[in-house]
Amino acid sequence: MSAGEIYLIREKITDRDNALFEAGIKLGALYHQFTGSPINLDTVSSFEQAIQKCISVQPYVNEISVNIDREMLKSKLGNKFGYSELQGPMLRVKITVKYGSVKAKVGMEFDTELNYPLMKIEEIEELNV
Amino acid sequence: MSAGEIYLIREKITDRDNALFEAGIKLGALYHQFTGSPINLDTVSSFEQAIQKCISVQPYVNEISVNIDREMLKSKLGNKFGYSELQGPMLRVKITVKYGSVKAKVGMEFDTELNYPLMKIEEIEELNV
Amino acid sequence: MSAGEIYLIREKITDRDNALFEAGIKLGALYHQFTGSPINLDTVSSFEQAIQKCISVQPYVNEISVNIDREMLKSKLGNKFGYSELQGPMLRVKITVKYGSVKAKVGMEFDTELNYPLMKIEEIEELNV
Amino acid sequence: MSAGEIYLIREKITDRDNALFEAGIKLGALYHQFTGSPINLDTVSSFEQAIQKCISVQPYVNEISVNIDREMLKSKLGNKFGYSELQGPMLRVKITVKYGSVKAKVGMEFDTELNYPLMKIEEIEELNV
Repeated sequence: MSAGEIYLIREKITDRDNALFEAGIKLGALYHQFTGSPINLDTVSSFEQAIQKCISVQPYVNEISVNIDREMLKSKLGNKFGYSELQGPMLRVKITVKYGSVKAKVGMEFDTELNYPLMKIEEIEELNV
Repeated sequence: MSAGEIYLIREKITDRDNALFEAGIKLGALYHQFTGSPINLDTVSSFEQAIQKCISVQPYVNEISVNIDREMLKSKLGNKFGYSELQGPMLRVKITVKYGSVKAKVGMEFDTELNYPLMKIEEIEELNV
Repeated sequence: MSAGEIYLIREKITDRDNALFEAGIKLGALYHQFTGSPINLDTVSSFEQAIQKCISVQPYVNEISVNIDREMLKSKLGNKFGYSELQGPMLRVKITVKYGSVKAKVGMEFDTELNYPLMKIEEIEELNV
Repeated sequence: MSAGEIYLIREKITDRDNALFEAGIKLGALYHQFTGSPINLDTVSSFEQAIQKCISVQPYVNEISVNIDREMLKSKLGNKFGYSELQGPMLRVKITVKYGSVKAKVGMEFDTELNYPLMKIEEIEELNV
């Protein structure tokens, strides 16, 4: 073929592909299910647990930790009613998904430079016996 | 005026009006915030608590109880992955809102005849000293 | 009875009570269903329509208008990806609910003084023939 | 090393990994943002468009189609009020994400055998010039 031509290579789907796909599903689900929930400093800790439990029952979730930023929450409590809703930037989440022979560790954290609650892949491990 | 004419009477807004309005807000919020959450038989009890705590931090909430129907949940666990999402018909909720001198007790429960998760006013109490 | 005693008066539930209750349900539902949705300046107008249509299919809704604050939205687009999620303070909503002989007009708008997206009753009309 | 030992191989993160991860995020987000929304046969078509537009503004989305099953919707309209909420099993979604040199096509569709709204990877294309 001539130079500059574009080849499309259709690929077999691997455990690794599925691990990353499933990890993405969990973060997208968590974010859009639970942001908006009313919380305050007394309830924030148990709500972190509640989110962890909910996402844990979904397929392929190996580990999960959810942290809600107390300082950011405090800064939002200055309205008349003393509570806030859970906002995306408050969330710091780490999820490990295991699919077949692959573990994918992904996370979400507010990126102050991008001004965006960034979801990203942190580590991929292939387990070979 | 002639017969058949329609009179519009603009009314002063009372504590009772606000109590009912606030009670409705809480039920609408609860339903649309938390349905869709992944649950199973191990996590359902703590998730009921989580919902109660979330709604309790909102203004004017005096009491709340949230029950998720275990039988209906069980009947939805027969998929490959052993969990379900929280569905509206599974919810039985009672909320008491107190606004000024008025307590409004409202609830949500699946109405099998209407085939609908019906929200309704259960009791209104005006507190006079 | 002696002075200082508290009387509880249980009240008959009226159309007016139900109108306010239903109006509250709609605002609570709208807020917790649609905040978090990804929008930008190209899609904001059609998303306002989409919210209006969704809430309109619910019982007792007579009129609804949904406005998303363009200036506030613009101020949130300064991240790398050029979009924002719909946030509560961006919403200005007016809903008229008709229940039996009563129309209740309610609204939601960001209250800069309270720093809170305040929902409130705007007008109650009793229709007498 | 001796037989039976487990090797962990930490892997470099590729465009392909990110494409799958981002595709998962979009499906998880779509599902948990929009299920629960009130719809009927008059509004279902415009609501499909609304979902497509919302997800399209998110990063790396190349193509999206959203179909809501009319037959399933009809079967849920038999309550007193003539509407339903959008339920996961009604959704048939196809999303193509492009990340760097990789296109990932993913989808969601109700799997009657699994009794589950299954999300899966449909095709991965690596574009080589």
